[in-house]
Amino acid sequence: MTKVYLDNTAGTPVLPEVKEAMLPFLGEVYGNPQSLHDWGDAARMAVDEAREKVAGLIGADPEEIIFTSGGTESNNLAVKGLALARQTQGKHVVVSAIEHFSVLHSARTLEKWGFKVTEVPVDKNGIVDPADVKKSIKKDTVLVSIMHANGEIGTIEPIKEIAKITKELKIPFHTDAVATAGTIPVNVNELEVDALSLAGSQFYGPKGAGALWVRKGVRIIPLLDGGIQEDGRRGGTENVPGIIGLGKAAELAAAQIQSRIKKLTPLRDSLLKGLPSKIKNVVVTGHPQNRLPGHASFCVEFIEGEAMLMLLNSKGIAVSSGSACTSRALKASHVLLSIGLSHEIAQGSVLFTLGLDTAKKDIDYVLETMPPVVDRLRQMSPLYAKFVKTGKGGK
Amino acid sequence: MTKVYLDNTAGTPVLPEVKEAMLPFLGEVYGNPQSLHDWGDAARMAVDEAREKVAGLIGADPEEIIFTSGGTESNNLAVKGLALARQTQGKHVVVSAIEHFSVLHSARTLEKWGFKVTEVPVDKNGIVDPADVKKSIKKDTVLVSIMHANGEIGTIEPIKEIAKITKELKIPFHTDAVATAGTIPVNVNELEVDALSLAGSQFYGPKGAGALWVRKGVRIIPLLDGGIQEDGRRGGTENVPGIIGLGKAAELAAAQIQSRIKKLTPLRDSLLKGLPSKIKNVVVTGHPQNRLPGHASFCVEFIEGEAMLMLLNSKGIAVSSGSACTSRALKASHVLLSIGLSHEIAQGSVLFTLGLDTAKKDIDYVLETMPPVVDRLRQMSPLYAKFVKTGKGGK
Repeated sequence: MTKVYLDNTAGTPVLPEVKEAMLPFLGEVYGNPQSLHDWGDAARMAVDEAREKVAGLIGADPEEIIFTSGGTESNNLAVKGLALARQTQGKHVVVSAIEHFSVLHSARTLEKWGFKVTEVPVDKNGIVDPADVKKSIKKDTVLVSIMHANGEIGTIEPIKEIAKITKELKIPFHTDAVATAGTIPVNVNELEVDALSLAGSQFYGPKGAGALWVRKGVRIIPLLDGGIQEDGRRGGTENVPGIIGLGKAAELAAAQIQSRIKKLTPLRDSLLKGLPSKIKNVVVTGHPQNRLPGHASFCVEFIEGEAMLMLLNSKGIAVSSGSACTSRALKASHVLLSIGLSHEIAQGSVLFTLGLDTAKKDIDYVLETMPPVVDRLRQMSPLYAKFVKTGKGGK
Repeated sequence: MTKVYLDNTAGTPVLPEVKEAMLPFLGEVYGNPQSLHDWGDAARMAVDEAREKVAGLIGADPEEIIFTSGGTESNNLAVKGLALARQTQGKHVVVSAIEHFSVLHSARTLEKWGFKVTEVPVDKNGIVDPADVKKSIKKDTVLVSIMHANGEIGTIEPIKEIAKITKELKIPFHTDAVATAGTIPVNVNELEVDALSLAGSQFYGPKGAGALWVRKGVRIIPLLDGGIQEDGRRGGTENVPGIIGLGKAAELAAAQIQSRIKKLTPLRDSLLKGLPSKIKNVVVTGHPQNRLPGHASFCVEFIEGEAMLMLLNSKGIAVSSGSACTSRALKASHVLLSIGLSHEIAQGSVLFTLGLDTAKKDIDYVLETMPPVVDRLRQMSPLYAKFVKTGKGGK
């Protein structure tokens, strides 16, 4: 059977070069990077080299990189650690309404600790208006956290414009770049942010390895107390194989980013255009232009996303209907509700995220498989029957 | 040159079977365990199997296992998460004075959040007296955390006896079993604890993978907010390769634990006896009998541990002079000070931790290499010169 994996946002394959780079660290190089002998030195030098590569991907200094267990830890460390470090100055935090739950739920935890949180809304394309961020900032605001791009709808946010505001007001600005780092050019000095999260599993590195970049001089309270690893900002023995894999993936992404974008964008566009032309009552979600290169997301009316996902799976196609982190919760996405979609329409969410393995024939297969799948599911929908009869209920 | 790695507490090599088990998850199996398609299913089934193996190692139910990024995260989650879940009932926590910094510094963080912390002392062998734990418990005590064994001095604590007290008083009891799980038999129901930390890098699994076991019905607040992974107790995409490796290592440890102990104990004993018989003014640290099977620790008087470590390294021998997590801080160990050693003597700490690769010839090499190394270092010590002249200054 044809097998087409279009769920790269849930996790990319590990590139063979990345696996190759990791293997010695699951074999002959087993020292602890903190150990003061040759075995430790070998591990530490490799970790330092990976740190340079990760820093290189985002135009940062290596010593500003804190290795973490992934995007969620990076976001937790950023939101809690930056806010707690400033709690004597104020207890107000600004986030967007469409942040990943690792940011939103960290903000909820801050609320339990006495902070106030403002959620900035987004427009129908998922764009945060920098003017809204400015309006939401108060005298006691100690952190702004707005994502670089949204993994569910692919929209890229105007981070540079928001950073102009936070910089002027001297408020630390964190961006969750899990969806963008390694996928589109990300440079911390061009973006002018103060902290930035990234995750290897989004750009062909291993799961379980990520990083938080924090600009020199910006204070942060550790989330994991313990040893003096990561310059005292994150205790715990380094995940050496994971870090080496993250470093290699960063190096490859930095070198190939333009060719990857060039490859993915037309494939994405043929889906974005093709699907609504072949199926009625399909809404593209997210921004039509300012979106991730391999990201095509839709809401298909009169359909349950999960049912569609499973039927597509039976045809050999892997997609998702939202964030993998909450897929098993089977709730309507807070992102889709935030861009103004109704619960009914949000339920028909389907998300195609393309990767380096994706070929034109895969997209053709999707475009040919989707219409009968949608038809079949709509046959079972009482709402669709009503719509066909009365013309009512469609968007 | 002869190469002898005796720093297994800082990190064990990854067994070839463990690496082998991990490889597919750095290759063809790249799905996100949370994804509702075949790619996700393959990853999830493997993670579930690993969960069973880790649970099997400690006699637990699989659903009680929370996968983490290692021992430090497990300890942070346990200490903070169990205490925070009970803060309306009280804000007092009991730990021992010789806990790993991931427990002690988590307790420090709790103090910043308004908790009080009692540190129970240890005797000269590093043993916690259960009666001292009992005495330290107050009406508002909401957590006791005492390690199963200490990684620096090898002492195994009377966890079962302490658990009798906490159980009677209905206070949650966490034990940091990072040094014991996979090394000596650990059964959560025999120990009667409520939470237990373990780490793969201590028993031939990969770095970056650990677990916290929490008894069913015991509430815990997550440390990493985000998705609904680990039954809502730990957000973040699962470190699939790491978890698979941890599972395989747990399976192997469970099967081989008695043969490993049988192999390591006599080698350890020949070091524990041999070194003090060959070198004057050497103190064995930790309990003479109740200690980890592969663990031989000493303080060599009139010597700096780090200098000894480096000289031994030049002879091909890897040892440590304390916890790898703080080795670069170059401070006297809080563990050695807690067992009543002076700063001077504590500085001469040297720690041999044996592993499955260790052979009798390695121990013979150490016993033959150590005396001239110690001699050479003592030649440079003014304190030693004084001791030789006056007989003063020795223990």
